Amino acid sequence: MSGFRATVLTLYPEMFPGPLGVALSGKALAKGLWSLDVADIRDAAEDRHRSVDDTPAGGGPGMVMRADIVARALDRAAEPDDPRPRLLMSPRGRPLRQEFVRDLAAGPGAVIVCGRFEGVDERVIEGRGLTEVSVGDYVLSGGEPAALVLLDAVVRLLPGVMGKTESGTEESFEAGLLEYPHYTRPQVWEERTIPEVLTSGDHGRIARWRREAAERLTAERRPDLWTDYQARRRADETNRPRRSRSRD
Amino acid sequence: MSGFRATVLTLYPEMFPGPLGVALSGKALAKGLWSLDVADIRDAAEDRHRSVDDTPAGGGPGMVMRADIVARALDRAAEPDDPRPRLLMSPRGRPLRQEFVRDLAAGPGAVIVCGRFEGVDERVIEGRGLTEVSVGDYVLSGGEPAALVLLDAVVRLLPGVMGKTESGTEESFEAGLLEYPHYTRPQVWEERTIPEVLTSGDHGRIARWRREAAERLTAERRPDLWTDYQARRRADETNRPRRSRSRD
Repeated sequence: MSGFRATVLTLYPEMFPGPLGVALSGKALAKGLWSLDVADIRDAAEDRHRSVDDTPAGGGPGMVMRADIVARALDRAAEPDDPRPRLLMSPRGRPLRQEFVRDLAAGPGAVIVCGRFEGVDERVIEGRGLTEVSVGDYVLSGGEPAALVLLDAVVRLLPGVMGKTESGTEESFEAGLLEYPHYTRPQVWEERTIPEVLTSGDHGRIARWRREAAERLTAERRPDLWTDYQARRRADETNRPRRSRSRD
Repeated sequence: MSGFRATVLTLYPEMFPGPLGVALSGKALAKGLWSLDVADIRDAAEDRHRSVDDTPAGGGPGMVMRADIVARALDRAAEPDDPRPRLLMSPRGRPLRQEFVRDLAAGPGAVIVCGRFEGVDERVIEGRGLTEVSVGDYVLSGGEPAALVLLDAVVRLLPGVMGKTESGTEESFEAGLLEYPHYTRPQVWEERTIPEVLTSGDHGRIARWRREAAERLTAERRPDLWTDYQARRRADETNRPRRSRSRD
């Protein structure tokens, strides 16, 4: 199969495909638009208790996943020349953004290690070149819910997965703005009406209203995105030839 | 039951409890430390096709979830005086952070609406006082994977859910720093050794090494968190009485 190949290494294989087996990603999985292998890290353990963790060097709470066990699980799941990026879901990681999702979706797949306990021995991160990826600044029980989120985001972008009806969402978001407000029938609901401009049929006014609403929302809710957006817009204006600038 | 009560409104009830039925959160669910009700938004539809969405006012791709249907599903799932916050998982929302996770875990529960398609009619967000929450700056197929992540983060903090072995992770993270590197046996793995300081038994040196490693990692990987951390530290020093400052 030539589609996107995901391999997930986890202590809880029963969590997969989970929500990824349903709806958009589930249909795509059934159609073979992507594939999912799940490996139980515990199968790489060697003692009769199948232990995968040990106490942290230097003391402290919790347990740490052993470098040798995780490496063995990885080596079984992917050949050394496997071109897929090797990711470790971790709150210390590179924050997941839509650009990175898009890069992953354009590639051959991903090998994803789900950490549990306090974390994974640093040496396997270095020794096997794992890229740490964080889905957000909060602490999860393990990497599994994060892997589900990452794969959900990637799978919807794979060729053939989204129909036309599902394909609009990221445009506004990828321009660096939050999405403008949406409305649909009924025209009046609990005395609240759809903004008049949206039913005017004037496509220019509608586009302007949406752009302004998206800008206002972004400025209010996400000063961080708003600063980036303004910087990008200033750079675009500086680089633009004069004649098009005068059209503004 | 007096524990945390989650009610999830979704078009894909079969996605729940999914990963939340396994491991830490699954055991806590079985023990009654939290509860999960799942409502199918489609049950609030009124036509024989059970439609929940319609085309966006003003045109554009995709479909929008109807205000009247979502409101009816909400009104059935929670009484008007239900004290639980009503959340809508949405990339336009307030970014989920560990502080908010902690606030939620200290409360009575949450009513969580999972959006699908282009989004939800703005009027039901206003009319039912929904708080939009975003798990990260990426686009998902729907709110369900985001709700799974949010609940996973909350449930692990509920009283009785984590044992001592699982409880350390957020301390470093909540101080505003990424976690220091972890190591465990074996002492040597593929010629890589555990840093000497961690096996020295000198608890003061270990604590300093970990703190410095966490600071270095944060500065390198997350300039945003690092700036906040430094500002907080400067404020702490300004507010500290002189005699404790001289101890540094």
